[in-house]
Amino acid sequence: MTNILIWNEFRHEKSNPAVQAVYPHGIHRALASGLTAAGLSTRTATLDEPEHGLGEDVLDQTDVLIWWGHRAHGEVDDAIVERVQQRVLDGMGLIVLHSGHFSKLFKRLMGTTCDLKWREMGERERIWVTAPNHPITAGLGEYFEIEHEEMYGEFFDIPAPDELVFVSWFQGGEVFRSGCCYRRGSGKIFYFRPGHETYPTYFHPDVLRVIANACRWAAPGGGVRPSFGHRPQPLERLEDHRP
Amino acid sequence: MTNILIWNEFRHEKSNPAVQAVYPHGIHRALASGLTAAGLSTRTATLDEPEHGLGEDVLDQTDVLIWWGHRAHGEVDDAIVERVQQRVLDGMGLIVLHSGHFSKLFKRLMGTTCDLKWREMGERERIWVTAPNHPITAGLGEYFEIEHEEMYGEFFDIPAPDELVFVSWFQGGEVFRSGCCYRRGSGKIFYFRPGHETYPTYFHPDVLRVIANACRWAAPGGGVRPSFGHRPQPLERLEDHRP
Amino acid sequence: MTNILIWNEFRHEKSNPAVQAVYPHGIHRALASGLTAAGLSTRTATLDEPEHGLGEDVLDQTDVLIWWGHRAHGEVDDAIVERVQQRVLDGMGLIVLHSGHFSKLFKRLMGTTCDLKWREMGERERIWVTAPNHPITAGLGEYFEIEHEEMYGEFFDIPAPDELVFVSWFQGGEVFRSGCCYRRGSGKIFYFRPGHETYPTYFHPDVLRVIANACRWAAPGGGVRPSFGHRPQPLERLEDHRP
Amino acid sequence: MTNILIWNEFRHEKSNPAVQAVYPHGIHRALASGLTAAGLSTRTATLDEPEHGLGEDVLDQTDVLIWWGHRAHGEVDDAIVERVQQRVLDGMGLIVLHSGHFSKLFKRLMGTTCDLKWREMGERERIWVTAPNHPITAGLGEYFEIEHEEMYGEFFDIPAPDELVFVSWFQGGEVFRSGCCYRRGSGKIFYFRPGHETYPTYFHPDVLRVIANACRWAAPGGGVRPSFGHRPQPLERLEDHRP
Repeated sequence: MTNILIWNEFRHEKSNPAVQAVYPHGIHRALASGLTAAGLSTRTATLDEPEHGLGEDVLDQTDVLIWWGHRAHGEVDDAIVERVQQRVLDGMGLIVLHSGHFSKLFKRLMGTTCDLKWREMGERERIWVTAPNHPITAGLGEYFEIEHEEMYGEFFDIPAPDELVFVSWFQGGEVFRSGCCYRRGSGKIFYFRPGHETYPTYFHPDVLRVIANACRWAAPGGGVRPSFGHRPQPLERLEDHRP
Repeated sequence: MTNILIWNEFRHEKSNPAVQAVYPHGIHRALASGLTAAGLSTRTATLDEPEHGLGEDVLDQTDVLIWWGHRAHGEVDDAIVERVQQRVLDGMGLIVLHSGHFSKLFKRLMGTTCDLKWREMGERERIWVTAPNHPITAGLGEYFEIEHEEMYGEFFDIPAPDELVFVSWFQGGEVFRSGCCYRRGSGKIFYFRPGHETYPTYFHPDVLRVIANACRWAAPGGGVRPSFGHRPQPLERLEDHRP
Repeated sequence: MTNILIWNEFRHEKSNPAVQAVYPHGIHRALASGLTAAGLSTRTATLDEPEHGLGEDVLDQTDVLIWWGHRAHGEVDDAIVERVQQRVLDGMGLIVLHSGHFSKLFKRLMGTTCDLKWREMGERERIWVTAPNHPITAGLGEYFEIEHEEMYGEFFDIPAPDELVFVSWFQGGEVFRSGCCYRRGSGKIFYFRPGHETYPTYFHPDVLRVIANACRWAAPGGGVRPSFGHRPQPLERLEDHRP
Repeated sequence: MTNILIWNEFRHEKSNPAVQAVYPHGIHRALASGLTAAGLSTRTATLDEPEHGLGEDVLDQTDVLIWWGHRAHGEVDDAIVERVQQRVLDGMGLIVLHSGHFSKLFKRLMGTTCDLKWREMGERERIWVTAPNHPITAGLGEYFEIEHEEMYGEFFDIPAPDELVFVSWFQGGEVFRSGCCYRRGSGKIFYFRPGHETYPTYFHPDVLRVIANACRWAAPGGGVRPSFGHRPQPLERLEDHRP
């Protein structure tokens, strides 16, 4: 079974009544309920736990890590970020949600600023599939709608995705590359846009479906593990082979 | 100087008064005016000329071919299509406009159906740049608008573009990958969405700017010309080199 | 269970004693044995059967098609090629082997000449993994060797692959992109280089492992099925929404 | 004119007589001579200068930065690395040479370990073009050879390049993706493999040709400059537009 670790900053929910009203037990709990119902094995971790809940032993038991952060990106310890980055390169899957675009972890893995345009006015988002037959789209229609969401607009400063799965339309006039697949080292990464803390996005059945599909897609694939470093012995003799 | 050949089906303009009112001399003449003003050397060719105006001698003088077709795709001779396809693979640039997505030429070069969703209700299109600093975007803002256009919507059945330069927002709720770069063989191809025959799209300064930029981008780059076939002589001797 | 259809031209084996000695029952039978042993459900089809063994009913029962052809590419009926191409775009997986690079089917799906350099002197090929953790590499080491093979050398005139899984080293001094993944429409395509008819390549355990892995990778993924065409009803009202 | 800044760690040349014999004035001087002869405007900077020679005013005058480092990657100041990374994302071109694959700068821009296999036995390298007509290949043949070089072998832990221009064959049996193009933010990056400090690689005419071509390719393209951040005003009114 695929073991999912849901990481949440878990700050808005403790300080902002509007967020608390939507996610009384935290975004991580909402996600855990939805993904457990989809047949995945989930645990959670949050910023204020020791090692942010991301100890080596915890990561040893993790196939795919989900990441939600927003206002406290700067409080995530650099050593933990480096640890998690290395785990991803070693094969652990990673799903980065919404404002996680600005996390240290995602920026380090992308190498770019990951900046974008944004507006919080509760407008409608329509998310279109641009990669049919992709496993992350299983069970969806050709698009789905979120009635109220924060707007994220292009230009989104990311490397061109290895596969572009979703593009969003916003009522206010913008578009956004909302579902982006990456392969980095031995790991797979999926960025998925929706999920502002003041809207019940993580109860939306299609949003949960996408995240569950992405967890299955990002799980380690069982292929070759690369090795690196000095190779003192050539595989062919080095005498002159000129014709 | 970059030599541009503008190919137009040139049928709507002769039979449909609404189109004639917008493009009295044909879409090819409107494009030629705009591109000549942008400093490019242009000629035109149309479907009803001998060899559709695409004789070997004409193609010998062409760096970049622009293609607009719509209702008469089926009348384009297969042998001419094959000739032009081979020229592109040999290094001639190709700009495919709007309904040219369904031309024999584009479908053969893509290998897919190139199908899409469409609606003709004169809605607003807002074209967003998703590849900053790309030469095709020179002189634009972060987006530009076309007040009235036909809608094209995803899924657009093309290979994932090598570079995605534009994504369109439509008033009616759809999105579309509107500017797509491809490298095929030694040639460069740019698909650009706007240009329905009943709207004055090809007089829009930003649309002309994009097409002029694309012509410069698609012009042959002067790199290596590949060779193919039998290589009887190995570059290294084939005796056993095992250590 | 994934249903595999192995298509073989099956001409060399009937006319050339050297090939017959290696593949007495045909390349398709050798592949069927190897893939059945790997747990796949296989059937075979050959050029000289009615409809080349590729009737609509047969394709209805096929998840992934494997294609080997060489000297009789021109005898494959265009209507059958178009039928199979459409099936791939509709989601059927396709594995193209070795000299199948020059088949009508592969060339139509790629849109390029698919040409390359070649030499038949039985030299050593060493196939390196360039995409670790890719499911097609499961069970391999970081490279594997084929003691005697035909050389294929760059430039290989294909679109840049969506994922490059293998690169070959040849004793005579060339390199080749030997394992190339593509997504086209709803289908997945894998080109795999090895398999000259005069060598026992299709009995090599790592070659069979790759082909079996590729069959599983290319099987339909269960994602969204796109629809196309006229959309008379906008999803949002088209009155003027300007602020 | 394109302004090139050649950065060299410049340590081996001062301490190792074998390196000094090949590059008596430093690798940066050898490159400067070659690139100046190719018509480029060059300056140099080295690790032991104040700010490593990479002050804001110097970078203001730089279109393309070339980077060679090896044993002192760790001595490059993190703040300078961040400064240069941001310049690249803002549009400055970057050419990373040989052992620069392990520089802080390249690893930060790639997000991966950038690790590889290596062996220093002076073997022959044959560099094949895999992207014909690419401007970086102008003036080359289909391959070129370096008689003695350090071997770098796959797996090379980088993101899949946006364009793969060269693949190397090594006498000892390995292959390597030797010429890799990336777009990151508004900047273009080219990694080019050859250049071990004990071999006269940077006097090789084809190596210099590639680096000069890459400088021209990576120079800022003059396209759109993106903006980011809060967009309080929607471009369309947010009232309900449902049909």
